Amino acid sequence: MKLLSFIANGHPSFGAVRDNCVVDLGARMAGCTNLRQLLETNRVAEAAKLAVSAAPDHPLDKITFAPVIPDPGKIICVGLNYRDHVVETGRTVTEKPALFVRFPCSQVGHLQPIVKPKVSDDFDYEGELALVIGKEGRHIPASRALDHIAGYSCYNEGSVRDWQRHTSQFLSGKTFAESGSFGPWLVTTDEIPDPSKLTLQTRLNGAVVQDTTTDLLITAIPELIAYISAICPLVPGDVIVTGTPGGVGAKRTPPLWMRPGDTVEVEISGIGNLRNKVIAEPA
Amino acid sequence: MKLLSFIANGHPSFGAVRDNCVVDLGARMAGCTNLRQLLETNRVAEAAKLAVSAAPDHPLDKITFAPVIPDPGKIICVGLNYRDHVVETGRTVTEKPALFVRFPCSQVGHLQPIVKPKVSDDFDYEGELALVIGKEGRHIPASRALDHIAGYSCYNEGSVRDWQRHTSQFLSGKTFAESGSFGPWLVTTDEIPDPSKLTLQTRLNGAVVQDTTTDLLITAIPELIAYISAICPLVPGDVIVTGTPGGVGAKRTPPLWMRPGDTVEVEISGIGNLRNKVIAEPA
Repeated sequence: MKLLSFIANGHPSFGAVRDNCVVDLGARMAGCTNLRQLLETNRVAEAAKLAVSAAPDHPLDKITFAPVIPDPGKIICVGLNYRDHVVETGRTVTEKPALFVRFPCSQVGHLQPIVKPKVSDDFDYEGELALVIGKEGRHIPASRALDHIAGYSCYNEGSVRDWQRHTSQFLSGKTFAESGSFGPWLVTTDEIPDPSKLTLQTRLNGAVVQDTTTDLLITAIPELIAYISAICPLVPGDVIVTGTPGGVGAKRTPPLWMRPGDTVEVEISGIGNLRNKVIAEPA
Repeated sequence: MKLLSFIANGHPSFGAVRDNCVVDLGARMAGCTNLRQLLETNRVAEAAKLAVSAAPDHPLDKITFAPVIPDPGKIICVGLNYRDHVVETGRTVTEKPALFVRFPCSQVGHLQPIVKPKVSDDFDYEGELALVIGKEGRHIPASRALDHIAGYSCYNEGSVRDWQRHTSQFLSGKTFAESGSFGPWLVTTDEIPDPSKLTLQTRLNGAVVQDTTTDLLITAIPELIAYISAICPLVPGDVIVTGTPGGVGAKRTPPLWMRPGDTVEVEISGIGNLRNKVIAEPA
């Protein structure tokens, strides 16, 4: 099942995709107004029944896509988690994953514009596989980690490289307002039993700029969940963005930046194609 | 005025401190159930009137202190922002502030136990001045930054040093569940017109381990707000934790760690004394 967050006729809701349309679940599930709440209240099975039985409400091209989870409690990103990206940055592989954060205000939905900030032109793409937590846990063993995942999505972890390099800490360059995107939807785990068997491609104006398979993650998804949940609880709606492969714009000669008017896509097999235009922040 | 978040008789609320008692504002202000909402709805003046006119509801020693803002949208911490701390870490001063994040689940209130995780014994204190945003803004000039602050509080930015050093990124050691504390309350800006004129002391079992004046911040509060708000909007309830001075336990010979049974205090002039016991995470 494909679950998404959207706005239709000015009202935010969430739903399931069927036949290029959306079944509005927010309108049908009393007491549940958003996708995070659906996961928190463990009502995904009920949603799945409605997704096949209810009449679709909106064609996909009539909705505004919101980020899959518009307001996650945590967006934990993994840096330097593909070997070819580690090499291009001139860094070395660490035994443990490098974690940093984005704030929810840094993400937009599918087909919404991402914003090049006015303080920088060094605006870079990072295509990544994201997962959404469906079941709370602390000290989750890697062997049971996949049970805690609700589903998978595409993420463009848009990065402002000069600000990212102001200090040793990446945050400043990683959480510019509306600089990244998350979507188009979450594909539930029944359709993706093994997240290490996916292909991921990032395209800038149609040209392939990143191309990988997810078996190449240095710290695989079960071990990421085990590591993070040793630190703090993971709860429904939390998002883990698993890292970007080689090919980022900053490490090309000359650098390849995203510019206003560009179109960037992150496509993952079995999930979908997350597409965004780039606009400039108003002066 | 001192504003705080608390639990009394099992119910979370917020209030104002008067005569060693709490005036329960949550019980008196319709439509406003927590301190973040009070700031979002710009009802601080109304709270101030109630704080002096209403009968106190609970003695301070009968409430459970919650973190000043229990669930901030952002907790932005500043690393390496006092020269003596930069020197003791062997790093160099950067032109821009080093920013990282804690999640809300990493903080507890005044007098609540902070938790040494079972995966590490390298549990360190960091006494810091925290500020709470009261008015939304983006691209806030430093000259107007203080207008966006609701008030100030104490923060113990408890850090798990070996996990902090797993990679270049600090997050892993900075957001262990219930490893830090925030309180006892927020003191509104009318009582602290200049946050650069405060003294800050951290004590472990009564011994002074950190002692500074806030005029020594490398990046001062107005410039921190200007820098961060160039990245993304700051909104009411957001928290900025401004950095720790020299004297951390990790850089002593031998290292001085917080251990179960210890008492740690962060006292700031004009604000108060944030005190917590240390307990061990259950095995």
